[in-house]
Parts: sequence; C-alpha cells; structure tokens
Amino acid sequence: MNLAPPRGMRDFYPEDMRIRNRIFDAWKRAAHLYGFEEYDAPVVETEELLTRKSGEEIIQQIYNFTDKSNRRLALRPEMTPSLARMVIARQKQLTYPLKWFSIPQCFRYERMTKGRKREHFQWNLDVVGEPGLMAETEILGAAITALRLLGLSEQDFRVRIGSRALLADLFKASGLAEQHFLPVCLVLDKMGKISPDEMQAMLRDEGLTPTEIKKVIDLMSITSIDEAVAYLNQVTPAIAEVRELFAIMTTTGLAAYLEFDMAIIRGLSYYTGIVFEAFDRQQKFRAIFGGGRYDNLLNALGGETMPSVGLGFGDVVIQELLTALDKLNDEKAAAEILMGYMTPAERDYALQVATAFRNDGIPVDLALMPEKAKKLFSRANKMGTRYTIFIGPDEVHQQTISLKNMITGESQRYSLSALKAGNINLH
Amino acid sequence: MNLAPPRGMRDFYPEDMRIRNRIFDAWKRAAHLYGFEEYDAPVVETEELLTRKSGEEIIQQIYNFTDKSNRRLALRPEMTPSLARMVIARQKQLTYPLKWFSIPQCFRYERMTKGRKREHFQWNLDVVGEPGLMAETEILGAAITALRLLGLSEQDFRVRIGSRALLADLFKASGLAEQHFLPVCLVLDKMGKISPDEMQAMLRDEGLTPTEIKKVIDLMSITSIDEAVAYLNQVTPAIAEVRELFAIMTTTGLAAYLEFDMAIIRGLSYYTGIVFEAFDRQQKFRAIFGGGRYDNLLNALGGETMPSVGLGFGDVVIQELLTALDKLNDEKAAAEILMGYMTPAERDYALQVATAFRNDGIPVDLALMPEKAKKLFSRANKMGTRYTIFIGPDEVHQQTISLKNMITGESQRYSLSALKAGNINLH
Repeated sequence: MNLAPPRGMRDFYPEDMRIRNRIFDAWKRAAHLYGFEEYDAPVVETEELLTRKSGEEIIQQIYNFTDKSNRRLALRPEMTPSLARMVIARQKQLTYPLKWFSIPQCFRYERMTKGRKREHFQWNLDVVGEPGLMAETEILGAAITALRLLGLSEQDFRVRIGSRALLADLFKASGLAEQHFLPVCLVLDKMGKISPDEMQAMLRDEGLTPTEIKKVIDLMSITSIDEAVAYLNQVTPAIAEVRELFAIMTTTGLAAYLEFDMAIIRGLSYYTGIVFEAFDRQQKFRAIFGGGRYDNLLNALGGETMPSVGLGFGDVVIQELLTALDKLNDEKAAAEILMGYMTPAERDYALQVATAFRNDGIPVDLALMPEKAKKLFSRANKMGTRYTIFIGPDEVHQQTISLKNMITGESQRYSLSALKAGNINLH
Repeated sequence: MNLAPPRGMRDFYPEDMRIRNRIFDAWKRAAHLYGFEEYDAPVVETEELLTRKSGEEIIQQIYNFTDKSNRRLALRPEMTPSLARMVIARQKQLTYPLKWFSIPQCFRYERMTKGRKREHFQWNLDVVGEPGLMAETEILGAAITALRLLGLSEQDFRVRIGSRALLADLFKASGLAEQHFLPVCLVLDKMGKISPDEMQAMLRDEGLTPTEIKKVIDLMSITSIDEAVAYLNQVTPAIAEVRELFAIMTTTGLAAYLEFDMAIIRGLSYYTGIVFEAFDRQQKFRAIFGGGRYDNLLNALGGETMPSVGLGFGDVVIQELLTALDKLNDEKAAAEILMGYMTPAERDYALQVATAFRNDGIPVDLALMPEKAKKLFSRANKMGTRYTIFIGPDEVHQQTISLKNMITGESQRYSLSALKAGNINLH
C-alpha cells in the first residue's frame, strides 16, 4: 500500500492546515475589505472550455480524462474559464461591474521541479464589466492588503506593472506584423526563465526573421515609461493608462509597492491591457501573484464583450516566502482550553464543565480518557494551548474548576455555578 | 459552447456561496468548540486506496480515470480512506487520540435523481486511537452543535443510534452464519429505500435460504434495547455500550436529540460498532449526517489496528432542510458600506475615504465609476448593505462624509479627519 499522496499533490496535516488557513484568511479578509463577493465552480470542467482560450503551455499541462459516459473532462488548471462560463450563462441577469473572488484548487500535470507541484490553491479576484482603471487598482489594492495582512511590508515585495496594450503600440511602431504579436508575447513571458539563445530560437520557430528578432529584443530593452514615450514619439492611450494607474495608487497610499516593468507580459493569451506580477524583493522566488486585463475573453467564449480584470495568487510561493522571512511561527492550536480528568469517576463532571464552556462559545479540547495532570500539562505545552483545566476528586466535591494560564503559570479557581452563569472571562 | 457546469456538479454564484459559507462556518465553529483540528488531503487519490475497503456500491460509483503516466486515479467518493492513509503514513509520530476534521468535496458518478448530485461537500469528523465511547459522544456533540448553530432545535431533527456490534450479537444468537453478516448489513442498509420484495431478492442473491431470510427479517423487527436484551437473554457488551452512550449524552444535555434504532446500519463495510444517522423529524429528506465506529480500517489498509470513529455530514441535504424550514433568509452581502461618487472629480476623495475605512478594518464596496445617488441607494437596498456613503462636491469641499444607515434611514455627518483618527464606530 503506497502511503504517499498522488505525485505532486499535497496532504495537509493539522500543522500544515494552520498555515494554509492563515493564508486563506488573509485572502478572504482582504477580499471582504474591498467588497468582493465569493463564488465557486466545479474543480472538474469540460476539456473544451479549459483549452479554448488559454495558450499553448497550459493545454499541454492539462489534467484531462474521459468519464464513464465518454465525456472529455479535466481538472481545471486555472479559474478564469469557469468564471467566464458562469458570467456568460447569466450575462443578462447579473449586475455590473461585478467584483468576485474565489480560492479554487488548480491542477497542472507538469514535470516536477523545486517549488512546482501539480496542484495549488489560487486566490482569484476578478472585476467584470468595468473598462476603467478602478478595476485594476481595486484588485491591486486587495492583493497588496492581503500581503500586508500576512505581515509583509515594502521591504519584502514589489508589484511590477506592464502593459500588453503598450507593448502592442511599440510592436506596431517598430514595424512588426500584428500576427506575430500574441505568439511573441508568450515567448517573451519566458524571459529570465530561459536563455537568450533559447528565446531567439523560439522566436525563429514563430517565423520571425533575424531582423524582426532584433526588433523584438530592442523593444525589451525599454525600461521606463519615458523611454516608451520617446520611442513612440507620443503619449498613446496605453501610456496615459499606466500613468493614471500609478496616480490612483498614490491616492490610496500604495504606489510605493509598484514599479513599471516592460518585461511583465504574462503567459496566458487572453490578456489585453495592463498586466502585473508581484515578486519578493530578493527575487529568490517565482511570482507571488499575477494578472491583468482581459477585455475579449467573454466574447471569445461566446458571450458579449465585457471588459474584465483578474488576478491569481497561489498558496505555494507565498508560503515559501513567509517561511524564508520567518513569518510563520505563531500558528495556534485549535482550542482555547485543554481539559483533562484524573479517573473515570471525574469524567461526568468534566463533561459538564466542557459543556458549559462550549455553550458559552469557548472551545474546549476535552481528554477522551483519564490521565495524570503532568501529562495534560505536557500536552498543552506541546500544542501551545493557552489554558488548561484538570479535574480531580476535589474539584468534583467542591463543584469548582481551577483554570491554569499556561503562559503566566497562574491558576484561578472558579465555581461551576459562576461558569454556568457565564461569569468567566478568559481574556 | 455549453454554459452549464459538468452534469451533476454545481456552480456557486455569490448568493449560493453565502449559504454554503453559512453551513461551512457552523461546521468549523462546532469543530473548534469541540477541539477538533483541521486537515485536508488531495481531491484525487489512487483508485487502489479508494476501492480497497469501501463496499460494493461506492466502487461502482467511483469517478476513476487514467492520468498521462497511466496511473489509475479517482476523484475521492469519501474522505475516510485518505484520512486512514495519512494516519498510517505517520502512525508512529502522531499523538493519540487525534481529533481531526475536514470539509472535502466528494464525488460519486451515479444516476441523477432528486437531491442527488455527483459531488457534495462533506464535513468529516474523526477520532482516531480511542476505544472508549467519549470518541462517539464528542463527535455527536459537535454534529448536534453544528445543527443548533444553523438554527435547528429538538423540533427539527433526531439522531438515530444503531450498533453493528449489537446486530452481530443478534445475528449470532439467531444462528445465522457469520460469513453472511457483512453482506446482509449492506442489504439491510437499503431498508426503506427499496421494497420488501427487492430486499428478499437481494438476501437470496447473497445465498441465504428462505429460513435464514425469515430470521433476518425477524431481527429487524426489534425496535428497542429492552427487546434486544430479551432476545439475547443477557446484557452483552454491545448493549451496555449503547446504554452508556445515552447516559453520557444525558450528562451533556443532548440525549433529547437521540433515539435508538436497530435499522441504522450504514452502507459502508468498514463499520464495527455504534453507528448513527440524523434525520429531519418529518422524514422528508435523506440522512443529514451519518457515521460510526470503524476499529479495523487502518489495519485493513496496512497500518496498525487503531480504534476510530468518524462522521460525514454533507452540504446538500442540510441545505434542502434549512430551505424547507425557512432558515436561510438573512444571508448578508459582503461589505458593511457601499460607497459611490457623483462625478470623476470626486473619485480621488472617495478613494481616500475608502482607504481610511479599510485601513481601520471596515469593508467598503467602492463604486468603480460615477453614478447618481439614487442608483447607489437602490443598489444598496438590493444587496442588503447596511450603510451607504455618497460623495458629491460638497463632501469634497468640506472634507466630510455622510454615513447613511439604510435600515433606519438616518444619516450622520463626520469629518475625514475623524475617520482617519479611527473615531467612527459603526455598531
């Protein structure tokens, strides 16, 4: 019997789950602060939906299979196609702009390398039906807020802002044919992950001549908005948009987290405007989150055109980063109180005490069999429980409890009647 | 393009998700009150693990497939095999008894009927490593607490307690051969779902003679513990155990929710002792939750024997019941405050106000484009938002906000500086 989970997939033991919940809680809290509503879709979708508009790499990595009725299904590699399907299915009834979030588990069947698993959980934030930049800035605000809630600051990460629309302007100005634009984007997204030679080979494979390849590489040497303006010799709408985005983020006090980076392009084919990726400042890890504007996806999937912006933020890289920055040390055990009893004779009294606390909304981890006080205290220390109660014959006789604070070591005695009346305040 | 989710699977639009979250929150809260720790496992497991000890029906319904490396995998139909695998993998290191919970999505590929989908979310509570009844009673206490947190009372549901150990005693006393016991259990579990004729045919298929079938049917006419004692002519350990369970539940004040029912058997083959199922009192719906003791499963999967109790509580039946009892009316929209502004000139001030609230931990759903006040108030009423703020030129000029309580209709004016100083209390 193989005791490992399927290759590339994770078990979450309670100590892993506490970390996962800390990340999920920050995501949910940030989404609520920004007024996003939660939704969800099936982890399994039709292969057709998932492969229709995603780009080559994802199609090769899709976890597809055939069900008992010969339907072609797949474990979703990303949430955006499901979101688009759900919106199109109710496109007339929904109220726009809609601001939705979800935390789907997503699957990619790919070669296993360091930091790469075959599944991850991915916080998705999407604004659908809003052409203006407030869609991008509310999403970026929520994502930066989540990182702050996880204890990260300006010292720890930056969000790099690119623009496919600006890249398209530059592409056109350089005289490159429009048909090459999307394939070139998908190649350029690999910059830094593959060698310059490999990149040139890939561009050659896309049918670009040596002159065209040189033009593409020249474009990628543009590192600032001012250089882009100089190259284009005008302020195009795409440039005005990048500037306006920085202005809004200045108003909300978050501009210090951003920097412009022409090389941010994203590996999915459906992006059309502003795109972004967040990185740790030491650049030791893969992108923390990424996303951008995808104005044509709903139309491409058979719905009406609807301007949209989305973000995906996985749980694997952020956990690696939090670990490296030593920010995962204070995860608490589940219950406020660990409670035990000396012999079977005290069990019923212990049950009464536990019931009174629980009825009062206070979690109690009650021992299931008698034990020695010493063993109870040692378990509490191991679990990091804040309070312990040990019931012996004296407590039963006096109808009292002795509540021990495991941090200060102090004990306080209460009557059972005071407890039942709700007169014990733990904090 | 097909816009429906795959057959038998659900989309969760925000209004559906609010209901799902209300159920999940009650599950998590009850689990924490009883000191259970959360864990999780992959939604995909090897087919071998999932089919090894589950019983016939589940094997026919498994959602299995072959991955790109020709591995036989499946979407889990239940969580218990994954739990057993995880425990066995660390059997020496874990501290017992362990009390774990999880909310996995589970899949069954079966014919679609009313109230039956191909997936559901199932709250799992397990105690591993405890032979005593406190394992059963803590699990039952947590499950009943979850139903109470969802607004249900003694008027609404009952937990029926059966015992496979007691059934085995009766089986033996009636002279039936032990080899028939497990197959007969799986047939008897269908009682009430199939006709008496069908049941007799199934028992015949298991190789029982007409005399043996009559014995089985006679056993099922036993409806109380006292009748079982009379039939057995002694108080067996299995009977003492059922009585003790009711005594403990009396101590915790929950015995009124329980009733003994010989016909509770459960459809999975791994149960060995006390088993239970909860039903609405009108008996209009399928079981709300079910579970029981499975002392031999870990051993059967290659680990050391470890006495265990588990419970599964799905999200579909409880939602049907809450709907029928009209308990799902007060699900709230995400944000405390819905905020809008009159023209683009007020946008930056609105952003400053929203940022101040969010920095203070108060969710704000900020409009992404200008709108009329009337439209904002109408949206707030539709969403059930408690407060609105509408920013016009006056507010910007005076550096104030007007906070409108949508329930009372009253408005209160505050200065931006008071807001930034954290001097606005919403409740």
